[in-house]
Amino acid sequence: MTLWKATISYDGTPFHGWQVQPGRHTVQGTLAAALQRISGEIVLPQGSGRTDAGVHALGQVASFELTAPIPAPNLHHALNRALPPSIRLLSLEAAPPRFHARHSAVRKTYEYRIVPRISAAETICSPMLAPYVWACPYRLDVGAMSEAAAHVLGTHDFTSFAAVDPDESCRTARESEPQEGEQGRLNRKGSCLPTPNIRTVLASEWTLHADEPLLRYRVTGSGFLHHMVRNLVGTFVEIGVGRLRASEMPSILAARDRRTAGPTAPARGLFLVEVDY
Amino acid sequence: MTLWKATISYDGTPFHGWQVQPGRHTVQGTLAAALQRISGEIVLPQGSGRTDAGVHALGQVASFELTAPIPAPNLHHALNRALPPSIRLLSLEAAPPRFHARHSAVRKTYEYRIVPRISAAETICSPMLAPYVWACPYRLDVGAMSEAAAHVLGTHDFTSFAAVDPDESCRTARESEPQEGEQGRLNRKGSCLPTPNIRTVLASEWTLHADEPLLRYRVTGSGFLHHMVRNLVGTFVEIGVGRLRASEMPSILAARDRRTAGPTAPARGLFLVEVDY
Repeated sequence: MTLWKATISYDGTPFHGWQVQPGRHTVQGTLAAALQRISGEIVLPQGSGRTDAGVHALGQVASFELTAPIPAPNLHHALNRALPPSIRLLSLEAAPPRFHARHSAVRKTYEYRIVPRISAAETICSPMLAPYVWACPYRLDVGAMSEAAAHVLGTHDFTSFAAVDPDESCRTARESEPQEGEQGRLNRKGSCLPTPNIRTVLASEWTLHADEPLLRYRVTGSGFLHHMVRNLVGTFVEIGVGRLRASEMPSILAARDRRTAGPTAPARGLFLVEVDY
Repeated sequence: MTLWKATISYDGTPFHGWQVQPGRHTVQGTLAAALQRISGEIVLPQGSGRTDAGVHALGQVASFELTAPIPAPNLHHALNRALPPSIRLLSLEAAPPRFHARHSAVRKTYEYRIVPRISAAETICSPMLAPYVWACPYRLDVGAMSEAAAHVLGTHDFTSFAAVDPDESCRTARESEPQEGEQGRLNRKGSCLPTPNIRTVLASEWTLHADEPLLRYRVTGSGFLHHMVRNLVGTFVEIGVGRLRASEMPSILAARDRRTAGPTAPARGLFLVEVDY
């Protein structure tokens, strides 16, 4: 029995997200099918976290166990042959005992890409870029967005930036797999506790390179709530447009109320860049 | 009645090429449908040339006439709203009288993009790049490919690099629209003349930038035969691999025989960059 750690890149466009779902084309399901085809074994690879439909990965990590004694280079090669070009195994290695792609993760980095409106003329987003960016129809004040981004550094309750599923927040916490970085959420009787949406953000920065039309937001943290990066970006864009001020970030965080923050940015601009262990 | 000149970019991946075909999703057909939705008029926009299924465009040019007196900025905006994100009108202007996107073209530039194999390890092509490059499984001698590329500069008979449709070359010439840069191919009785596949290449160069994994071939010419750029690239790659020598290019051209040249490179690496008038 070998425990494997695979680093994976995928184009999220053709998939209904990472997590396997009956009758849907997902990254996890496609990977499981490739593993079964190669080894004959039925295994469900565990990701470092789910990515939503349309979200991309430059360095998702998955772990899985196989009984078949296949040498790493052969398994790596066979998987890339079995997988569609929209999923690539960048590396494959035997993992240390008890390694788990989600539970062992200590840090994750995401990047969000925006094609901003630069002139008075409308932004025309290249068709080749369109699936990988938010072509933002607004002119953005990058200085204000950078100031806002600095406000989320450190440890905060990110409830204002967490996906809200009305009437479902309790059921979700009880019945589905735990959110990233979250452990022991429930008491013994399974009753619903107030969700501790506390996370630590280690890096949070907007960059604009002169030689390309992309505005990029990079964020590294101990873990992220569902939709947290997209909700942060949607809020930063509200600030960039001038509908909110950067100085309001602390009160938005303090409110612990999703309605105080901006809308959710589109999935297609988001990339899971790296997972650290 | 206004004659319009539109410069268009498209991602060729989801289309069965430029040319309208019954029951198929094509760029020309999608553009015609958008024009009809906006103006109520049935027009078939003429492209500077057809692109094959999977070939992309950074600057395809199309011309069409509309009776509706719509101001250019409004029509431009309406078309980009009506078109899918995989097709973008980059610019739109009233054209001079008798302008025709194909007949008026004097020069075209194509680019072909390859992700070369750099190390002994297999090339792993990013899923986000895969639809736009040929992830070439070989290590390539770029010096030899550059030498070969220089051999096609000037005016030559490119029969060795033209698509061969066995038993169909005559029928094709008679029944379908003329190849680019080709006029008056047929005598009055419609009998089949030997095809004059003479074209002039003005620029032909391979470049490799240190900061990206792409090897690019740029070629500018008076016109191109069907599959000519992909057949040139397929031959340059044979030379890069060492299966043919750069010094054989003149004899391959002189042979006027498709079998002497290399295979056709995949469509997905090809971009129509620019059309000059």
